[in-house]
Amino acid sequence: MLELEIRSATRDDVPLILSFIKELAEYERLSQEVVATEEGLRDSLFGERPAAEVLIGHLGDEPAGFALFFHSFSTFLGRPGIYLEDLYVRPAFRGTGVGRTLLVRLAELATERGCGRLEWSVLNWNKPAIRFYKALGAVPMDEWTVYRVTGDAVGDLAAGRRLP
Amino acid sequence: MLELEIRSATRDDVPLILSFIKELAEYERLSQEVVATEEGLRDSLFGERPAAEVLIGHLGDEPAGFALFFHSFSTFLGRPGIYLEDLYVRPAFRGTGVGRTLLVRLAELATERGCGRLEWSVLNWNKPAIRFYKALGAVPMDEWTVYRVTGDAVGDLAAGRRLP
Repeated sequence: MLELEIRSATRDDVPLILSFIKELAEYERLSQEVVATEEGLRDSLFGERPAAEVLIGHLGDEPAGFALFFHSFSTFLGRPGIYLEDLYVRPAFRGTGVGRTLLVRLAELATERGCGRLEWSVLNWNKPAIRFYKALGAVPMDEWTVYRVTGDAVGDLAAGRRLP
Repeated sequence: MLELEIRSATRDDVPLILSFIKELAEYERLSQEVVATEEGLRDSLFGERPAAEVLIGHLGDEPAGFALFFHSFSTFLGRPGIYLEDLYVRPAFRGTGVGRTLLVRLAELATERGCGRLEWSVLNWNKPAIRFYKALGAVPMDEWTVYRVTGDAVGDLAAGRRLP
């Protein structure tokens, strides 16, 4: 049986991380939204002020999946949280415990760092993922919806071109 | 007419920030969830590694509202974003442009800092807020739901007590 290992990513993993991001986008049917580049990821993740952290899961010598996360902050709890932006396991490695072990490692980090919550977003059609997350103790925030200003709309809002 | 001013919060604003947080929770009918303290906020917001940033909006001498935000990271864009955790305007100051001006200032910060998106969560019953946000160019992420592990469930997951 292959050994399952979780480790923190380094600069050398940037090409692998970008592959994971693209594979995840394909699975989510959102490939057209990916504009990330290796250079950009290198700056953002391993520059002077890292914007996020990455865990890589291996089965034996094979990179099997990854988790990319950053710290959130809850005003109600008055404590930081962990927001899991991406969790992805390559199809060939599903059902091997890689995803579960990445989530357990994140829960450990949350505990070590005094975080009050661990959260992430799920596409509503992704029923297998939803069953899995609920079984792990995650609760859907059904009463809330995220609103997003993106692309040109950010500049429009900044410039006062979208004021009601 | 009173002058509207937006400024960055300092350590001296912690009692005011906690008041805003409690008033917001009351408006959201979530007061029972607030366990934040002045001491905790001082550490989290103005310690060595600030977990979030705060803008305060004034009308004349009166503190009228606040915005608390932190940086997210989009793997698809390969760039950071701004996540607005709390936006609150005191009832007496609604309709004066404080909320709008706080959002415009955040869009300016997003532009200055090279962020690809600005986002926040809204309670689905808060129709006045939803109308306002849509008018500003925000789009609801209707196909996504946030899943959250919180409280004891974080420790349970870390300790392997919630494994399917």
